[in-house]
Amino acid sequence: MKINGQHYRTIWLAQDGWRVVVIDQTRLPFRFETVALGSSEQAADAIRNMVVRGAPLIGATAAYGVALAMRADASDTALDAALALLGATRPTAVNLRWALARMRRVVTPLAPAARVEAAYGEAAAICDEDVALCRAIGGHGLPLVREIAARKPAGQPVNILTHCNAGWIATVDWGTALAPIYLAHDAGIPVHVWVDETRPRNQGAALTAYELGAHGVPHTVITDNAGGHLMQRGQVDLVIVGTDRTTAAGDVANKIGTYLKALAAHDNGVPFYVALPSPTIDWSIRDGLRDIPIEERAGREVTHLAGLAEDGEVRAVRVVAPGSAVANPAFDVTPARLVTGLITERGVCAASSEGLAGLFPDLACGAAA
Amino acid sequence: MKINGQHYRTIWLAQDGWRVVVIDQTRLPFRFETVALGSSEQAADAIRNMVVRGAPLIGATAAYGVALAMRADASDTALDAALALLGATRPTAVNLRWALARMRRVVTPLAPAARVEAAYGEAAAICDEDVALCRAIGGHGLPLVREIAARKPAGQPVNILTHCNAGWIATVDWGTALAPIYLAHDAGIPVHVWVDETRPRNQGAALTAYELGAHGVPHTVITDNAGGHLMQRGQVDLVIVGTDRTTAAGDVANKIGTYLKALAAHDNGVPFYVALPSPTIDWSIRDGLRDIPIEERAGREVTHLAGLAEDGEVRAVRVVAPGSAVANPAFDVTPARLVTGLITERGVCAASSEGLAGLFPDLACGAAA
Repeated sequence: MKINGQHYRTIWLAQDGWRVVVIDQTRLPFRFETVALGSSEQAADAIRNMVVRGAPLIGATAAYGVALAMRADASDTALDAALALLGATRPTAVNLRWALARMRRVVTPLAPAARVEAAYGEAAAICDEDVALCRAIGGHGLPLVREIAARKPAGQPVNILTHCNAGWIATVDWGTALAPIYLAHDAGIPVHVWVDETRPRNQGAALTAYELGAHGVPHTVITDNAGGHLMQRGQVDLVIVGTDRTTAAGDVANKIGTYLKALAAHDNGVPFYVALPSPTIDWSIRDGLRDIPIEERAGREVTHLAGLAEDGEVRAVRVVAPGSAVANPAFDVTPARLVTGLITERGVCAASSEGLAGLFPDLACGAAA
Repeated sequence: MKINGQHYRTIWLAQDGWRVVVIDQTRLPFRFETVALGSSEQAADAIRNMVVRGAPLIGATAAYGVALAMRADASDTALDAALALLGATRPTAVNLRWALARMRRVVTPLAPAARVEAAYGEAAAICDEDVALCRAIGGHGLPLVREIAARKPAGQPVNILTHCNAGWIATVDWGTALAPIYLAHDAGIPVHVWVDETRPRNQGAALTAYELGAHGVPHTVITDNAGGHLMQRGQVDLVIVGTDRTTAAGDVANKIGTYLKALAAHDNGVPFYVALPSPTIDWSIRDGLRDIPIEERAGREVTHLAGLAEDGEVRAVRVVAPGSAVANPAFDVTPARLVTGLITERGVCAASSEGLAGLFPDLACGAAA
């Protein structure tokens, strides 16, 4: 996507042809700075410190981390050390483990002399495949936006609400939930995005707002409390969100608060779509409420908020009364009955066993019945 | 209610017998400081600068402001000036206008020599009546809490979710939505309150958490996004919120985000009650979505957040990406169909024309049909 008219991915090779450049997401939205990673240690630090974030981008960075390690020392010992180092950065990230296993599979059989080129090639392939996956999600979501635009008076924007950040800076390019929006915008369809700020970590206000603004997509940031009101007033045409895990029956775990927006969309007849690459489908479970564990994160995310202070520094302030307990569940589950459809890289389907099995017969086979 | 074991109202006469003391709510929850108001100008400043807030407390402060004016100069000219000054502080507050009209009615017919004592007496009566109103709401809400407690295993707390601040610091004492909770706690019924932080102004995280903590009521602050998830998991037994305006048919306008919690309560079979003194009922309207205008407040409330910085000062930080537009609707409307019941000073009734007319036949007569 674009930042001030220039096309960017979130990760790319430096002009020297071997270092790996990423956008420092800990500085967004207040600073746009890039960091060149010159070693697997630096790649691991970037993941651990959330310089890069978003499951697909974490996987891509780890893959390049292996390539950087091979460039320094292509021995088996160095490979094992790099895989262990990178794998320990964010222990629960599915894409991280997947990308490292893939790199190991490609690199291990080769003679050390051939490993560097192969590793760089595989890391680049992982990036390109992620771009293609997201682009396909966007392509399948685009008609949903186009159909709504066709029903509106000419020039009236399609108002799309999203929650959290499922945009290009969480992936290599395009994003998932935002991919149909970028494609629509680039196709000249007028769109306007309601961006939930997404407490407690404010990924909407900080990251989604940043990337939409940088690409030139009209948008308005709202509190998480406001979306229902906007739907009641007819100011939302469509909701698109991402997901962290989807069950074989179409239940969707996503950032805390997604369920409330799904309820409001249902109550007001607003279509509610979830965009997902098929690797996020967990074919082994059906009942999301029963079977998806919900991470409880640090209370400090609720008690404190970081932002740009008047002195130009990013500072944290306490917003909760001292002494009060806090709870911080990070995700919630939206039951399939509230989901209008799932936008995947193979097309749009109903949020149901039948819908998913229809698009993914190869994967659904043997899923929990 | 109590602060560290000592009973407080939010407004009282100083030991000198004439100045009026209030808690400086702009310093909460990080500092507990009181301010003695010695003139109608100081009372007006306290209202304007939100040293005092909450419709009932604003009305009480304005009433004492008239008394302070009379003490300085009991002439008709001074009375008119004080009423004008105080009336201009928060132009949209219903209780403010009501309290000032009542003071004018009491003071105007009297000879100047009799005005000071009468004004102080009437201001005290306004305070005492507000306490009685809130206490009655609490008394009628208490059985709802008690019944749930009786169904739970002994010692298990009744989990009550609330949104925004409808507590004692918004009134003279007890509060509205929190009154049943304080009464239950004081009666030895174990209660635990889920406190929505209530973006954008964080009245939950700052004020509700503060006052519950000061009185010793167990509570946990959560993001506004979390309540639906907690209801899905059976962790909420009851929702009680306040309201800014209630229609004759039981639609309820309250702080933005209330509607989302009502939807989640409905979806999970959790009772959803609204506590209100009858003066907040607008008998002239029925359809809240159509007839209640929703205030759009300053965008800075969304873009910036104030809290306690590490240097011990309360500082504002920007949390929204620079350049992004924001919207800030301050209230939303919860349709009567989602409200289990209304807790008023005369008892609990259905959120419907019949329910309200049954409790308030004297007021409902002639209401919009």
